[in-house]
Amino acid sequence: MIESRIFFETTPRKIDNDPWYAKLQDEIKAGASGYYRLPVDQEGLLHEIEAFKQERLDLLYGCENIVVVGIGGSSLGSKAIHNALKYRKSSKRMLFLESSDPLQIDMELGRISLEKSVFIIISKSGSTIETISLFKYILQCYGAATPKEAANRLIFITDKGSALEKLGVANGVKTFGIDANVGGRFSVLSAVGLVPLALAGYDVRSLLEGAKALYEQFVLQGNDRHGLLEKAAYFVENHDEITINVLFTYTSLLKDFNAWYVQLWGESLGKVNRSGRRVGLTPIGIIGPVDQHSFLQLIMEGPRNKSVTFIKIAHSLEAVHIPEISLPGLESTDYANGVHFETLIGKQCDATREALESVGVPTDIIELEALNEDNMGYIMYYYELLTSLVGIGLDINTYDQPGVEIGKVILQEKFRDRK
Amino acid sequence: MIESRIFFETTPRKIDNDPWYAKLQDEIKAGASGYYRLPVDQEGLLHEIEAFKQERLDLLYGCENIVVVGIGGSSLGSKAIHNALKYRKSSKRMLFLESSDPLQIDMELGRISLEKSVFIIISKSGSTIETISLFKYILQCYGAATPKEAANRLIFITDKGSALEKLGVANGVKTFGIDANVGGRFSVLSAVGLVPLALAGYDVRSLLEGAKALYEQFVLQGNDRHGLLEKAAYFVENHDEITINVLFTYTSLLKDFNAWYVQLWGESLGKVNRSGRRVGLTPIGIIGPVDQHSFLQLIMEGPRNKSVTFIKIAHSLEAVHIPEISLPGLESTDYANGVHFETLIGKQCDATREALESVGVPTDIIELEALNEDNMGYIMYYYELLTSLVGIGLDINTYDQPGVEIGKVILQEKFRDRK
Repeated sequence: MIESRIFFETTPRKIDNDPWYAKLQDEIKAGASGYYRLPVDQEGLLHEIEAFKQERLDLLYGCENIVVVGIGGSSLGSKAIHNALKYRKSSKRMLFLESSDPLQIDMELGRISLEKSVFIIISKSGSTIETISLFKYILQCYGAATPKEAANRLIFITDKGSALEKLGVANGVKTFGIDANVGGRFSVLSAVGLVPLALAGYDVRSLLEGAKALYEQFVLQGNDRHGLLEKAAYFVENHDEITINVLFTYTSLLKDFNAWYVQLWGESLGKVNRSGRRVGLTPIGIIGPVDQHSFLQLIMEGPRNKSVTFIKIAHSLEAVHIPEISLPGLESTDYANGVHFETLIGKQCDATREALESVGVPTDIIELEALNEDNMGYIMYYYELLTSLVGIGLDINTYDQPGVEIGKVILQEKFRDRK
Repeated sequence: MIESRIFFETTPRKIDNDPWYAKLQDEIKAGASGYYRLPVDQEGLLHEIEAFKQERLDLLYGCENIVVVGIGGSSLGSKAIHNALKYRKSSKRMLFLESSDPLQIDMELGRISLEKSVFIIISKSGSTIETISLFKYILQCYGAATPKEAANRLIFITDKGSALEKLGVANGVKTFGIDANVGGRFSVLSAVGLVPLALAGYDVRSLLEGAKALYEQFVLQGNDRHGLLEKAAYFVENHDEITINVLFTYTSLLKDFNAWYVQLWGESLGKVNRSGRRVGLTPIGIIGPVDQHSFLQLIMEGPRNKSVTFIKIAHSLEAVHIPEISLPGLESTDYANGVHFETLIGKQCDATREALESVGVPTDIIELEALNEDNMGYIMYYYELLTSLVGIGLDINTYDQPGVEIGKVILQEKFRDRK
């Protein structure tokens, strides 16, 4: 279902005595990050979601909009999956209120009826300023002075033991917990992603199954068929020259998957390492073929500081094809007449990769057979594992984000001045 | 209406004997790029658009959807402006068919009624494979075997003298021309941007007026109040260390403006220069405050290879404010109670910039008083001028894109194999 191929030269690594692989197994045992075992750990949560759906049929029956209120890791994962799969038109509408941007808040809320919506407030810490400010605004929209008065329209997802969890319990708001050792950007397979996606109608069990296939293969059986270790080693060894990793995704539907990747890669790997050195790899997500007409020139002829991973969908939609119309003067475009657009975009992906290879840019390709829950679970878990391995190689803490605290302190000072 | 401030140390430059400024004036005189004079050159086009609107009231009266069929420079500019200004709800719906992605083609066309749509086919060369293939598909959707049979639903925008222009004339399709020396990524103020935006209901005269204000200031009067020359010089002089230029835009509505900037900056500056050296600066567009929770960590603690330009909107929407609700356990978020979201997001922008400045990252800020046509014209022209100046400093041809040709050749070979 997922095939991959690496076109740059790597140093072979044997998984059974690989020090990075051993460290990854240590991280799993020590519980350094709880994301590793999510693909096989969520049976209890799936039952809890199912029970909630049964219990609250009244609410969900007339509900047209699932509104996720959360920012960063609290929204990027479910947004990526929803926008990848909504083309099947089998899910409810999902909206994402992420920002303190008044223009966007006004536009998004203007699109929905409050009486046909459920708001899922997601904050790991429970006190994210954007999310809680939006939550207060939503309470006001419902004419509610306390969460209790709007409890039947609300769901909370937050760390077990957080103040938001306590608030939920005290006000009769259904609250799902997150384990403390599951970081925001690694949380898509926890309640953070599964609850909103399940309520919107996605098959979250298949999502977990997809990730589980790779978990069993790589983590349990030590089978590295995608060359994760060699790819991670390449990024670490060439870290000083290749500072930018481009994901060139050949379908617009994975635009938000790219955004999810950017957070995962950038926030996990941009760190001061244990030797006190600034490290980090800059992630960029672009979309093919659109960005052949934008970013490609820079990769082809600009500085040699980029690697490019292509993502390609083998089977998208055969129904749409280019008709056999020849336009006078434009016969040079007739070479694509009569083919499916999926054939054209697939060949565009291959041609662009070969063009980059021909000028010496390191490339690899990941091919998804189709866009579905299974494959989304698999590829997201693939990227989480790859991030962990590069983090081990760079000798950093992959799971924290100490650099973003200064800004929060400065912000609060600015408001203190006001009073 | 647009204020700016640079926080990194620059070398002063005197505009009246500056060699880069002199070269820019030479480019204007020689017609090396026709974009420079678009703000003052388009009176004829404005009349042509007005006459077309009068003549075709029948078509436009019932028309709900303006569909732009184009890729890269043919769509990015009008898309940026539409998505920045559509919050005012005073325009028609615009759709952008850019990609050969069958899933997206199917989704977009599924949203509209063909009988209430106008398709604007935009291709500078006239033979862009994605655009012409989509055009053939649209003809088929109308049940048309030739452009003539759907002429009343079509507009062409293409280089004067191209095969597409001839096709338009022969089939009675209204065709607007582009001057050969106006490159795709510099074409937003030509027919490429003005025609679709005018038909959608935007005030394109104000768009031109905004750009004209900067044209008169900088090009005619030699007044560099924004420090364009010093900023360009900083990017050129620090080109080996600061390889990445981040645009950190504090409103989601400018997401497609960021995409427009990425093409302009990346495709113009990623070149082999006249000394045979690979040069180029990597553009990245991010959105605040969302990407404070994603990309910021990497800028704060990762390698020191980035500059950051902030874009801030002074007045967005005062009506939306954070209510005075205090939630038990979450009192730490009450510092923002009672303020407008526009105040919160503005202070978040300032706090993040100060945080980056405090750790030594070069930052500057551009403040738009509001989101409107005037300011969009101004800021897009600002970025075009800045791109030209950096291109002069890097000693490259800013206006070509030779690196993207190889991929097109390989693509055609792949189709030759098929037959």
